[in-house]
Formats: sequence, structure tokens, C-alpha cells
Amino acid sequence: MNPDLLQANEKYAANFASLKPDMGRFRNMMIIACCDPRVDPYDLLGLKNGEALIIRNAGGSAVDAVRSIMVPQHSFGVTGEIAVIHHTDCGMTKVTTDQMRELVKKANPARDDVAATVDSMDFYHILNIEEAVKNDVKFLSENPLLLKGTKLSGWVHDLETGKISKVVESAVSA
Amino acid sequence: MNPDLLQANEKYAANFASLKPDMGRFRNMMIIACCDPRVDPYDLLGLKNGEALIIRNAGGSAVDAVRSIMVPQHSFGVTGEIAVIHHTDCGMTKVTTDQMRELVKKANPARDDVAATVDSMDFYHILNIEEAVKNDVKFLSENPLLLKGTKLSGWVHDLETGKISKVVESAVSA
Repeated sequence: MNPDLLQANEKYAANFASLKPDMGRFRNMMIIACCDPRVDPYDLLGLKNGEALIIRNAGGSAVDAVRSIMVPQHSFGVTGEIAVIHHTDCGMTKVTTDQMRELVKKANPARDDVAATVDSMDFYHILNIEEAVKNDVKFLSENPLLLKGTKLSGWVHDLETGKISKVVESAVSA
Repeated sequence: MNPDLLQANEKYAANFASLKPDMGRFRNMMIIACCDPRVDPYDLLGLKNGEALIIRNAGGSAVDAVRSIMVPQHSFGVTGEIAVIHHTDCGMTKVTTDQMRELVKKANPARDDVAATVDSMDFYHILNIEEAVKNDVKFLSENPLLLKGTKLSGWVHDLETGKISKVVESAVSA
């Protein structure tokens, strides 16, 4: 990690008494977003440290987020809205599961074990962002592993304008 | 989503011309951190929007992050350091996989399908934060699905002081 990041951390720690987050400011909400460097859920929504639980993975996949939703719901009483936010120009619209499998196999030509593992993986390719948001919210709404009644919303974050637009609202009903 | 968050997004979009992130400021690094509301990788390291790819899940598990690491590595040329950052007082130290299974089954008493699904899930319980960081970095270093030579580092983020401390450095060697 670059020295300037470590210096920034020292400054952060030096001023920590006034910054220290606590669960008192938690809004009882979860956000699922992409790990893309251009996505910053704090900036995007004016969120301060401590206000939201934020899950991020390639594409902002709800399927990939299930474990991370279940733990706070079932163990720590986090019952609030789950907002699924996908963004335009997402990398997951640019590479398919089949292409990912080929790329990984090419990087490991002599490894049958790698080929078998990657062939068993789904990379959650996105064909259409709005459809993917709808599908992810539908997936959560029908998932009995989650707390029944949890409010769900699905959003598209436009990287060209910085605006978020609501695609769908729902609730866990399984 | 609360109206004040949507208002904050309108402000963000209104000032977007000067804020718009681009990959020009990307530091070619990935961060894996926990989804806990008290963890904010931007504040913690003084990172600005666009500088890092940030994966977040319950516990900051590297095992859970593999798909999200593979896509940018194999498809988008993200070859830089992966920093695994776990934090003190993590929820994953407070609930075991067995306890999670029991909680979910109790919430769905008549569902054998739910019981079977949750029994097949690993929730990546953490016994000791430093050991978990070491194990996660070791897991990545030995993983042939990742790009050979990728720099790895493992850190503990102390929620009481705001300081991060390096636990381990390594590289992908599989």
C-alpha cells in the first residue's frame, strides 16, 4: 500500500475522537453496489460513515451478496431496506461467463483442476442493466433465506450524470 | 430510500462535472473489506472516488471475493495490489456457521429446502482477526484462479483507534 495512504490513515486516526463512527447513526439499511472504482456509495448518496451497511462485488450482484445479507439480518437485527444499485458502463456487461472461463483457462493451460473450477463458476454477466436490477430484486424478494417483509428497492446509477433512478420497489415475500 | 439521500444524490449530480470520476485516477489496487457500517475504506485511507476497486462483504472474506477479483484481473487488466482489511469487533467473530444455520432454520421451521440450502453454506466465521487476515492472504496467494505475481497485503483495522496495522505481505504464487 502506498505511503500516502498510510499517512492518510495516520491523520484519520489522529482526528479519530471526533470522527469515530458508532451504530447510533446507522439508518438500518443495506446497499448492494458494484466494486467499480468509479462507484462511491458515500458520495453518491451523501452517506456518512456509520449510516449504511455496504456490500460491494463485481456487478453489484444480489445473488453474490446473500451470505452478507443473511448475517446482519439473522444475527444482528438489521431489518431495514436493501437497495440494489447497478451502474451504467458496468464491466459485467462487457465480459460473459464463457469468456471469463476461457481467459482463466488460457492463463493456466496445463491445469485441469483450474478448468474444472472455473467451469463450475457463474460470473453473473449482465445483458441489460435495468433488467439485471429487476432480476436481482426479484431474486431477493423470492428468497426464503432472507427476512420476510424486508423492503427492497432497485436503482440504476448513471455514471455519466451521477444520478440514481429507481427501477423497482418490492419486499421479501418468500 | 429516505428522501434526504435522494436530495443528496441530486446535489451530487448537480456538481457532477467537477466530481466525475474517471479511471485516470485509478491506483490499480483492490481493497477487500467488511460491509460493517462503521468501516469506510475512503475515510480510512484518504481515498478519493475512482482511486480503488473496493469489494465488501460480511467479514471482508477473501474467499467470498474471488469472483469479484477474477473479473477485473482477467478482463480489465487490474494487476495491482490486493489489500485485505479486517476490522476489530467484527460481526463474523460473534456468530458461527452453525449458529447461522440454526437461526435461519428457526425462521423457516417447515422448509426442508431452506434447511438443506443453509446446511450447504459456509458463513466464514472468524475466530481471531489476525489469523483470519493471514488465512485470507494465504488463500489468495495459493489460488491459481488469480493472476500470478499479484502483490497481496493483509491488515487489521482497529475500530477503537481508526489505525490500520499490517499483518502480512505476500504475492500470488500458484
